[in-house]
Amino acid sequence: MFKEMYDVIVVGGGHAGCEAAAAAANMGSRTLLITMNLQTIGQMSCNPAMGGIAKGQIVREIDALGGYSGIVTDRSAIQFKMLNLSKGPAMWSPRAQNDRMRFAEEWRSALERIPNLDFYQEMAVGITMEKERITGVKTSLGLEIRGKSVVLTNGTFLNGLIHIGLKNFGGGRAGERASTGITEQLVSLGFDTGRMKTGTPPRVDGRSLNYQKMIPQPGDESPGKFSFLDTPTLSTQRECHMTYTNPEVHDLLRDGFSRSPMFNGRIQSIGPRYCPSIEDKIDRFKERERHQIFVEPEGWNTVEVYVNGFSTSLPEDIQFKALRSVEGFENVKFFRPGYAIEYDYFPPTQLTHTLETKLVKNLFFAGQINGTTGYEEAGAQGIMAGINAHLKVSEEEPFVLRRDEAYIGVLIDDLITKGTEEPYRMFTSRAEYRTLLRQDNADLRLTERSFKLGLAGEERLERVRVKEDQYKELVGFFKKTSFVPEEVNPILESLDSKKVTQGDKLVKIFSRPKVRMHHMAMLNSVSTYIKEQKLIPEALEQAEIQVKYAGYIEKEKANADKLQRLENIRIPKDFDYMPLSSLSMEARQKLSEIRPATISQASRISGVSPSDISVLLVFLGR
Amino acid sequence: MFKEMYDVIVVGGGHAGCEAAAAAANMGSRTLLITMNLQTIGQMSCNPAMGGIAKGQIVREIDALGGYSGIVTDRSAIQFKMLNLSKGPAMWSPRAQNDRMRFAEEWRSALERIPNLDFYQEMAVGITMEKERITGVKTSLGLEIRGKSVVLTNGTFLNGLIHIGLKNFGGGRAGERASTGITEQLVSLGFDTGRMKTGTPPRVDGRSLNYQKMIPQPGDESPGKFSFLDTPTLSTQRECHMTYTNPEVHDLLRDGFSRSPMFNGRIQSIGPRYCPSIEDKIDRFKERERHQIFVEPEGWNTVEVYVNGFSTSLPEDIQFKALRSVEGFENVKFFRPGYAIEYDYFPPTQLTHTLETKLVKNLFFAGQINGTTGYEEAGAQGIMAGINAHLKVSEEEPFVLRRDEAYIGVLIDDLITKGTEEPYRMFTSRAEYRTLLRQDNADLRLTERSFKLGLAGEERLERVRVKEDQYKELVGFFKKTSFVPEEVNPILESLDSKKVTQGDKLVKIFSRPKVRMHHMAMLNSVSTYIKEQKLIPEALEQAEIQVKYAGYIEKEKANADKLQRLENIRIPKDFDYMPLSSLSMEARQKLSEIRPATISQASRISGVSPSDISVLLVFLGR
Repeated sequence: MFKEMYDVIVVGGGHAGCEAAAAAANMGSRTLLITMNLQTIGQMSCNPAMGGIAKGQIVREIDALGGYSGIVTDRSAIQFKMLNLSKGPAMWSPRAQNDRMRFAEEWRSALERIPNLDFYQEMAVGITMEKERITGVKTSLGLEIRGKSVVLTNGTFLNGLIHIGLKNFGGGRAGERASTGITEQLVSLGFDTGRMKTGTPPRVDGRSLNYQKMIPQPGDESPGKFSFLDTPTLSTQRECHMTYTNPEVHDLLRDGFSRSPMFNGRIQSIGPRYCPSIEDKIDRFKERERHQIFVEPEGWNTVEVYVNGFSTSLPEDIQFKALRSVEGFENVKFFRPGYAIEYDYFPPTQLTHTLETKLVKNLFFAGQINGTTGYEEAGAQGIMAGINAHLKVSEEEPFVLRRDEAYIGVLIDDLITKGTEEPYRMFTSRAEYRTLLRQDNADLRLTERSFKLGLAGEERLERVRVKEDQYKELVGFFKKTSFVPEEVNPILESLDSKKVTQGDKLVKIFSRPKVRMHHMAMLNSVSTYIKEQKLIPEALEQAEIQVKYAGYIEKEKANADKLQRLENIRIPKDFDYMPLSSLSMEARQKLSEIRPATISQASRISGVSPSDISVLLVFLGR
Repeated sequence: MFKEMYDVIVVGGGHAGCEAAAAAANMGSRTLLITMNLQTIGQMSCNPAMGGIAKGQIVREIDALGGYSGIVTDRSAIQFKMLNLSKGPAMWSPRAQNDRMRFAEEWRSALERIPNLDFYQEMAVGITMEKERITGVKTSLGLEIRGKSVVLTNGTFLNGLIHIGLKNFGGGRAGERASTGITEQLVSLGFDTGRMKTGTPPRVDGRSLNYQKMIPQPGDESPGKFSFLDTPTLSTQRECHMTYTNPEVHDLLRDGFSRSPMFNGRIQSIGPRYCPSIEDKIDRFKERERHQIFVEPEGWNTVEVYVNGFSTSLPEDIQFKALRSVEGFENVKFFRPGYAIEYDYFPPTQLTHTLETKLVKNLFFAGQINGTTGYEEAGAQGIMAGINAHLKVSEEEPFVLRRDEAYIGVLIDDLITKGTEEPYRMFTSRAEYRTLLRQDNADLRLTERSFKLGLAGEERLERVRVKEDQYKELVGFFKKTSFVPEEVNPILESLDSKKVTQGDKLVKIFSRPKVRMHHMAMLNSVSTYIKEQKLIPEALEQAEIQVKYAGYIEKEKANADKLQRLENIRIPKDFDYMPLSSLSMEARQKLSEIRPATISQASRISGVSPSDISVLLVFLGR
């Protein structure tokens, strides 16, 4: 039935699989997306939201690279917020609430419009190989589908086991079957595997809630969006609400601890530390009298509601009783209880920077299979795996993002260098150059690179170029144009900023903390320039950030350049660490296992000390 | 968790379950819809179309009763056709192609708007009872949910087994789990059960088809709709296409017969005779050189296509090779192969006219669980089971439709009186009074009855009353108003109809076959009347049918009245047939088993002869 040899086969239709399939196909690979159910492509399995701190930056990066997560999010958003606006722009993080059904529809619709992309509904149960190279996948019906590269994005489906209280049953997601066969085969090939755990809260009937007792959480007054393309912004939005647990709720939950699979040893695997279950929270923070609960609508029209902050695998009766004691939830009705799910993952130190496995050539992993959590982290790995699966097949250079280029670079470097023992989630703190990795400049950082790869399209590139040219010229204008005190002093006065006694360049004024672009635009020269040059809002925003944070940005760039020098010192693939007795034994073992591609990567391996790096540098002739 | 006692619990969220839950809740019952997956409510599991011959009439009846199938269909239609327009109005049958995703969304959205209706996602694995009365359902998590009445609408999920070639695996639908436990419990309670089989064709990628080689199948130029409420009509439509199999296709399919679960004995159960698989068709009609294939888009935008007429459980490689030899399918790509599914049903002679089981009080069955096939048949049973589940709880009279009142009456009477050995599908030929049971008068037949029940709303009733008043007055106008020859002769001449020499009543002219309402409207008196009375199009259509088919209609009404007299002779519930030696032994056994409610129903039982009926009439004192 499948005579054709595909260039790239993507297994799984979640965030990772969708981005991987789209990227490979858009770059020209004959691509097949195989999934257990074509009707569940692009599901938001957990919360109906995209972005957030560090995660929003990732979505912008995926978009800048020519991915779809941002577009799909914009088209299905019901609320938008820019988080952390009170902090520096490195912390600004876009976040959207989404219509769950619409989100999946938009993904499916976007994928169907990609000419090189085929679809097939069946369970992939294994891979086929020749020597150490993958040749395709096997399906549950016994079909062999041939492919030059394969990207596995199995999410929580590999031997998925759902827990609610003392009950557990196989399943990849509520109401969906688990996937079997792949783990067993990979283990037989020598892969290390482990179990991870994640969880989801109950879904409830919004008609049974008393929103009067909760705190409204509206979206931004002028909502932004994710994509750098011309996706729509929201003209109306749906409100979320906030409420709190209380000591009574905690007591009721504690009543179920003896029947908790988390506490009685049934679940051994580790869950996401920064997205803990409610039982984890009250257990770990015994002194806390309350925890926040965000009440998130699942769409524009549906009455279904997501109870963010109340993830749990306690018995359903405990979930229900406890939630009924939360303010506003007195009469709550469940659509379905929360649950935990255990699934197989493969420690990601078994991968290279392209997300290709070290053991099997042309086999790539992306998403939760690598021990990550989060739609954004999954999508980021997906697009990178899809790009590199295509490049491998085309015998082109791999595409790797450095830690100073993108959160995506940090994510993948962390995973393959340090591995992860618990579901890995991105934070701004993981990025040492986060002042460079902002949501506002993801396009400036990445689009041209992606365009050169053949992924980001002309429209993206053109938009970036306009933005870049305009903001640079505007910064130049501020630097070379002078002001007279009489014009700026009234503005400074209104801002309680010290008046000036003599003229100077505009940039001097603009650098003052309280002075924003809209103040500058009150000056005749500036407003005329903006109008004459037809500057776009993105260019104004960028110019402001560049002027006001120039010091920080320059400093981080210098640091990054230093790193870059280490990054440029490559370690030969087959370098033999074992004879180097001046290296510590731990370093020799870790280096042999991880096989870092560069001195820089070697330096980030835990157990490899600065003195080990010096030894290495000597050996490599520096 | 479920402390509340529900009035009605509906198990299953397909066409039957949705209509049942909506009806019970709208009549005032506290209702719970429990389903394995709330995201698959209102799925069109097979073809993306509603209505058709006899089935379209059923949808109109469901709508007239206050159900949602018509509304949901109208809101998600992508094409509309009135079939059989060249035949008499009893044969006119509306049919719509639908956007599969939109259809499900509209159902979910409609249900969410019903105040008395709750939702819960879990597998129901059994029922709870006290004495011979149902008290609720048990779920896979071990919950007991209490309900005064329960409607089971399990579709193909009960021990569902999917077959493709020699492979088979448990599943309720492609990519979805089967449901277990209920059959086993019901059998232990004394229910008879059986296995039935149905099938579905491959879904394919529309981008891989060559529509140039197929025959376009556009919708009607002035598309109609299903609901009697003011749902939208289509302003644009999507085309379907038609093509044919050929001898080469048949040969290729025959190559797979040795691996066909239908022919090698793996599937013993009987499939729908009038919706046969392609292998059935070429096996049964060896002389036919080709069979029609309708190529139906699955929605407004999706590239997924349904291959109507190519249902099959042959091995996927055979399906693929054979379909590639169909004109226009030379390069077809599969989204998924066709398959057959075997599932448990319960012979419907175990039910009363209200669809309540005879063995367990307040337990109702609707849909495929009763051995029927078709969304429309399922929806019809669903609404009737939902109505009667509510009425039973409220201790009100049951609601039963007679065979001369509705196709729904024919459907249920056939099922419970005759049973069915193969998936039961409605045909116009099953209705002895089909001239009365037209799609155009479903509202006139049923809405007032439903309004009295408290189901159909004021708006429906008001619309029917206007239509009824107007058409009756218009018929009266035709009967009492005279014409002059000079005015009508030019019209008659243009229609090649014999000219008149003297004036007479308008009805005389209108009764002529070629004269349609728009011809009559060319007469001054008629057009003035229509304008002055502001007659609605439905009234004009109804008046035309009433004038032109008056003879047939009157005759069938008389026949129906005769039937009604037999229908009125009720047989006591505990009537003991066995001592009546003048009845044949077969009649005594069948009558004791089926326990007909009336002499009329008794007469329709196969094995009960007219002389048996005479004997019964004597015993009942007539």
